[in-house]
Amino acid sequence: MTVAEHLFILKRGAAELIPEEEFTARIGEGKPFTVKVGFDPTAPDLHLGHTVLLHKMKHFQQLGHRVVFVIGDFTGMIGDPSGKSDIRKALTRDEVLANAATYKEQVFKVLDPKLTEIRFNSEWLAPLTAEDMIRLAAKFTVARMLERDDFEKRYNDNKPIGIHEFFYPLMQGYDSVALNADVELGGTDQKFNLLVGRELMKASGLRPQMALTVPLLVGLDGVQKMSKSLNNYVGIYESSDEIFGKLMSISDSLMIEYYTLLSDKSVEAIDSLKSSMASGELNPMQAKKELAEEITARYHGQHSAREARERFEQIFSRHENPEDMIEFTYTRGEELLDIIVKLNFAPSRNEARRLGQQGGVTLNGEKALDLCLKPEGEQILKVGKRKFAKIKES
Amino acid sequence: MTVAEHLFILKRGAAELIPEEEFTARIGEGKPFTVKVGFDPTAPDLHLGHTVLLHKMKHFQQLGHRVVFVIGDFTGMIGDPSGKSDIRKALTRDEVLANAATYKEQVFKVLDPKLTEIRFNSEWLAPLTAEDMIRLAAKFTVARMLERDDFEKRYNDNKPIGIHEFFYPLMQGYDSVALNADVELGGTDQKFNLLVGRELMKASGLRPQMALTVPLLVGLDGVQKMSKSLNNYVGIYESSDEIFGKLMSISDSLMIEYYTLLSDKSVEAIDSLKSSMASGELNPMQAKKELAEEITARYHGQHSAREARERFEQIFSRHENPEDMIEFTYTRGEELLDIIVKLNFAPSRNEARRLGQQGGVTLNGEKALDLCLKPEGEQILKVGKRKFAKIKES
Repeated sequence: MTVAEHLFILKRGAAELIPEEEFTARIGEGKPFTVKVGFDPTAPDLHLGHTVLLHKMKHFQQLGHRVVFVIGDFTGMIGDPSGKSDIRKALTRDEVLANAATYKEQVFKVLDPKLTEIRFNSEWLAPLTAEDMIRLAAKFTVARMLERDDFEKRYNDNKPIGIHEFFYPLMQGYDSVALNADVELGGTDQKFNLLVGRELMKASGLRPQMALTVPLLVGLDGVQKMSKSLNNYVGIYESSDEIFGKLMSISDSLMIEYYTLLSDKSVEAIDSLKSSMASGELNPMQAKKELAEEITARYHGQHSAREARERFEQIFSRHENPEDMIEFTYTRGEELLDIIVKLNFAPSRNEARRLGQQGGVTLNGEKALDLCLKPEGEQILKVGKRKFAKIKES
Repeated sequence: MTVAEHLFILKRGAAELIPEEEFTARIGEGKPFTVKVGFDPTAPDLHLGHTVLLHKMKHFQQLGHRVVFVIGDFTGMIGDPSGKSDIRKALTRDEVLANAATYKEQVFKVLDPKLTEIRFNSEWLAPLTAEDMIRLAAKFTVARMLERDDFEKRYNDNKPIGIHEFFYPLMQGYDSVALNADVELGGTDQKFNLLVGRELMKASGLRPQMALTVPLLVGLDGVQKMSKSLNNYVGIYESSDEIFGKLMSISDSLMIEYYTLLSDKSVEAIDSLKSSMASGELNPMQAKKELAEEITARYHGQHSAREARERFEQIFSRHENPEDMIEFTYTRGEELLDIIVKLNFAPSRNEARRLGQQGGVTLNGEKALDLCLKPEGEQILKVGKRKFAKIKES
């Protein structure tokens, strides 16, 4: 493989290679890179947004590089000693290990366990002494640290920044020193931290690591980054039907992005999909089903993905109601909002109302914008695109 | 002794008691305070400016409090790991111990060794782990640290502040936690650091220390603070003649300040001196000689101080040349500037020239503004107020 081909694979879907000419030169040296990727030991419920990085790690593995998955257990076990951060509650050693186990289980759906080295950064951070910490801190200035977007914003807004918070990027950077990393991967929001690692390695007399950033995956809405709190995500622990169905709801242009960032298809194969769609040879719906099936299969296996696809096609593509529709009996006077919530079709009355007002609730195929039950017999309630129930008064 | 009398002694010459009402209340509790004073392990050549603090420590000792002299060897042994500070060159353990020994020797001219506890802060700082350091750092915010005058100035001037520099006030504050201090003493320029100690004790669930600051001693020029670099100082290691003579050069108002800050005379005795001078009963020159003799005696003993006073009176008060004048023979063509330097009357030709141009060099009583030797026989060379030599051509 030529350097250009090698670089071409690494650049697939990448946001930035820092600095790109160094990547070219060092690929040319022909030695496998030590590739470091850091993960928090909290919240191990991954969604597709997290897997963008995993796919990039996989590209490095496929090219013969050594990928080290660093679990930041050290700061996780300290938590936020100022007590101000909910995210940084102190974890016990057992919690960290349990989270790490869940992590592995999820991560190895994408990565090959045999090729993935897992390290805990307490290995080299816990033994540091006060003197080591001072020497580490001396390698970076206050002004440089305050350039980090979130610090700068908080400082200018007069919101407190604990001095210990300056240590998190430094310790993450020290991970690179300890591993003598050649490359660090991270989301574009991690760029500052990746460069801290680069600078600390330089200051420690090591060959400074390069950095490769991947974009933050756009969520199902096609606008904001995928996140649990925005409810525009696909969790990799969700059912095949959920994963398949959610992926079928994305726009055609987002589909291409997802192909680039989440599919195992080659860039050439994706380009060929694109031209087939452009020429009208291929229906985008067809391409989307291929993508949804590939991703569903990754987390639930080929058989389950195929079944999800079939159920989806039965309901949506053929405009039929599903065979296994839920039946629900309500009592006179019960409100439609409450029925929707009881059926778990919406998390709250408010959310159910919002869906209804947007035309997302139908009764026997008619939009129930007013969210009122009609005094009829058995009706088909549909909420959103994929939730159906046969409801009737008792 | 009443609380008011106790407080009166502590307040002598003090700049600030923080907070004063707390001092009153805690003196009232009747328990001896643990009084912490921190010193740098570098540059043990003390001048009178440093002794203001020692005198305040002595007042506390005389009132029965426990005074702990903390030598900041921990940071001294680390130095400035960024390599940017000349002051913070790393010292070896042996250098720290040697400096501490010199310190003690000088300090015990003012303090009673039996009442003075000496501690090295490496005792409690060296065992701190990375985790301890993070917990320590979490107790203080970046914004609060940047309020410190010098940090603020450097930050606004875009001059680098190493993150490790934030640790020095924190570790100094941690000394107070480790000692469970009731009071910390320092110069007014240390106020911020003393308050860090107070805040850290509070954050650690301890009764927060109070702080007492002493003013920075004004130098011999009566304007700027005493410092070696401004050459307006009296080193306590200087000869009796130097100490006595330098002290005789201060203004009358500065004399009163020196009495307050450096003399063992009681406030009442000083007040009485003041009124005697105001009424014309006492010549200020007389009072100044008393002060100079007291201070000289502290560092060289009563006998030596008395002799210095007599020599001074012989030269200046009686306007006679000293009996034991140095004799110096120069060769034809030698410049006066070089002779002055050879005699150690000035540190350099430039300094000698400056003195001469200001009228500080006389030959047989006439100002040698042009710094030229006259083609005469033996001449009396006088440099400054107290340096005489008989010079002649060989």
